[in-house]
Amino acid sequence: MSTAEKPKAGLEDTVATSSAICYLDGDRGVLAYCGYDIHDLARNATFEEVCYLLWHRRLPTRAELGDLQSQLIAARPLPDGVQRLMRALPAASGGGGMDLLRTLTSALSHYDPDASDNSPKANYRKAVRLTSQLSSLVATIGRMAKGQGPIEPDPVLGHAANFLYMLTGERPSGLATHAFDVALTLHADHELNASTFAARVAAATLTDIHSTIVGAIGALKGPLHGGANADVMRLLLEIGKDAPIEKAEEIVRAKLARKEKIPGFGHRVYHTEDPRATHLRQMSRDLGQRAGEPMWFEMSQRIEALVKTEKKLNPNVDFYSATTYHALGIDVDLFTPIFAVSRVSGWTAHVLEQYANNRLIRPRAEYIGPEYPQRYVALDAR
Amino acid sequence: MSTAEKPKAGLEDTVATSSAICYLDGDRGVLAYCGYDIHDLARNATFEEVCYLLWHRRLPTRAELGDLQSQLIAARPLPDGVQRLMRALPAASGGGGMDLLRTLTSALSHYDPDASDNSPKANYRKAVRLTSQLSSLVATIGRMAKGQGPIEPDPVLGHAANFLYMLTGERPSGLATHAFDVALTLHADHELNASTFAARVAAATLTDIHSTIVGAIGALKGPLHGGANADVMRLLLEIGKDAPIEKAEEIVRAKLARKEKIPGFGHRVYHTEDPRATHLRQMSRDLGQRAGEPMWFEMSQRIEALVKTEKKLNPNVDFYSATTYHALGIDVDLFTPIFAVSRVSGWTAHVLEQYANNRLIRPRAEYIGPEYPQRYVALDAR
Repeated sequence: MSTAEKPKAGLEDTVATSSAICYLDGDRGVLAYCGYDIHDLARNATFEEVCYLLWHRRLPTRAELGDLQSQLIAARPLPDGVQRLMRALPAASGGGGMDLLRTLTSALSHYDPDASDNSPKANYRKAVRLTSQLSSLVATIGRMAKGQGPIEPDPVLGHAANFLYMLTGERPSGLATHAFDVALTLHADHELNASTFAARVAAATLTDIHSTIVGAIGALKGPLHGGANADVMRLLLEIGKDAPIEKAEEIVRAKLARKEKIPGFGHRVYHTEDPRATHLRQMSRDLGQRAGEPMWFEMSQRIEALVKTEKKLNPNVDFYSATTYHALGIDVDLFTPIFAVSRVSGWTAHVLEQYANNRLIRPRAEYIGPEYPQRYVALDAR
Repeated sequence: MSTAEKPKAGLEDTVATSSAICYLDGDRGVLAYCGYDIHDLARNATFEEVCYLLWHRRLPTRAELGDLQSQLIAARPLPDGVQRLMRALPAASGGGGMDLLRTLTSALSHYDPDASDNSPKANYRKAVRLTSQLSSLVATIGRMAKGQGPIEPDPVLGHAANFLYMLTGERPSGLATHAFDVALTLHADHELNASTFAARVAAATLTDIHSTIVGAIGALKGPLHGGANADVMRLLLEIGKDAPIEKAEEIVRAKLARKEKIPGFGHRVYHTEDPRATHLRQMSRDLGQRAGEPMWFEMSQRIEALVKTEKKLNPNVDFYSATTYHALGIDVDLFTPIFAVSRVSGWTAHVLEQYANNRLIRPRAEYIGPEYPQRYVALDAR
């Protein structure tokens, strides 16, 4: 497009679609799913209720919630073919669990009973199934990374508790279950974040739902998106558990002096505190104390204060989710896959919404390359 | 985003980024890669030259082209692990080759020697490798769909001829090679089409290049995007090879009366003839005659005239690529995967460009859901 119109870098502040799912007010620090404030949901709702809300735009009755829970539980066991594939595939070097999650989620479509049915009802069934299967996949990926065998799901447990059980082989405490459930709720949706937008761009070609979620997983993997929570924990581990707390400041100061980005700070949308960080900070403190490792939270607080002073940046959802997950005994390589375990609920909600009122998403580019027309010169005359 | 700003549906005419790769003028019917008109490239350049052009923004010297050809040839054999996976995976029912291509391309990352290196040089190597590997993958997927074993690549053959050889097991004629090479050139890039845009959205999180291409494959699969060429051929096959030519008109008229879309017509950007259709129409005629099946082209011409009269729509790149591929003896299920064999060159060019000058692509949505704040009512009180 040879035009006077200059693109806004990264489509910042550009309205790409209308959506009934997520209300975000970056100036007031408000995040709400279908009108329900994230603080109310974090305090009161389970992740399964949140899934229902995102998919149906209203909270479920007890009967509706029971149905959804049954559907999620029924979908937990992974197809044999996918389990075999998990054992056969080496992890991509450096890719952590996200490459495995991307390949295995793609493979799920080969075994899905609704693969050839793209009707709204089948797509809803696939959304439920994918949400359940991603939890089983990530827990099992986590075990295999440690050389442990898979654990069968426990139909008595809710979504959050079952994930922790399939990961650790132990039934989690009430505190751990609640914390993980809240973390899932906080990460479930965030309007047109990059992975959700990638999913909607794919959905708008009317491709199948598995393709859209595989694309979203690939986008979430990036260090500017879901990869940040793992980078936060790697930074803390680099500082070290037994280091004097001043070392955290030293290392972060040195990074800032080298103009390096500190992971877990700043957000395109929020100009206030990220409302999700409020909950995660609290959980990071409580769980760290329980785990007998309060130093990670203390270090994080020092870094938060320093980055606020030096860069005027607030912690985002990734900063305190790192130490929250660490205190739950979860390995760093699993942090971003766990983000997907939650966000798949929002991805699928957005994809179903896109299907229901679709138009191909096809923007234009401002052309800045060699002037048209270039004269073609034969190979031997170049 | 609670705002007065209304989104343009599908980001139509919205400039999402600047790019030096593709020049598109929909009013004049111009398509050019890095300044070179598509007609010049289709007549004179090989697909390998076009790849070099897209990746380097200039045509190669003979030595540079030789280097690239060697790199492409070296990358043709598929990793053993991916070959094993191909034998183990069932095709997703209804997904044709695109589900397999998506899963297997994702699996390639697990065996890529540069998987953990996201430097510009490693990303370039991965772009070359993926372009070569997708050709081998699609040819082998095509054979396996017919119960045939894989064919080893032939290092003497160029990219187009080697693909046809790996697909059919026979060294292709000069005419077939040239036609397929031109088809690859015509499909190589098209600015911010939906799959390329999906790849750039993912790339902007700084995820790895395999993730971006896997996302693009998923988007290309959609019937509003790459899936259309297969739909065109299915329509023609439904009319039938031996049907009187009037039946084509009858069936299409009935579809139009039912307000159904006729696949292969209309384009968001072109208001004139799609310059790619000009070449593909010619090839469809020539190859159809050679193959002793001129009826597909004749039927297509009748449909073109009818849709032009009734709907004022021109054929797009998909309409005559269908019968071109059919005349080359390629099965319908392979049409969209073949689109990927070509477009991977453009996808990777756009991803490398995005990496080189990156900003997270993160638009906003206009919120149209339940009013904020909704009062949270406890489960048993609902």
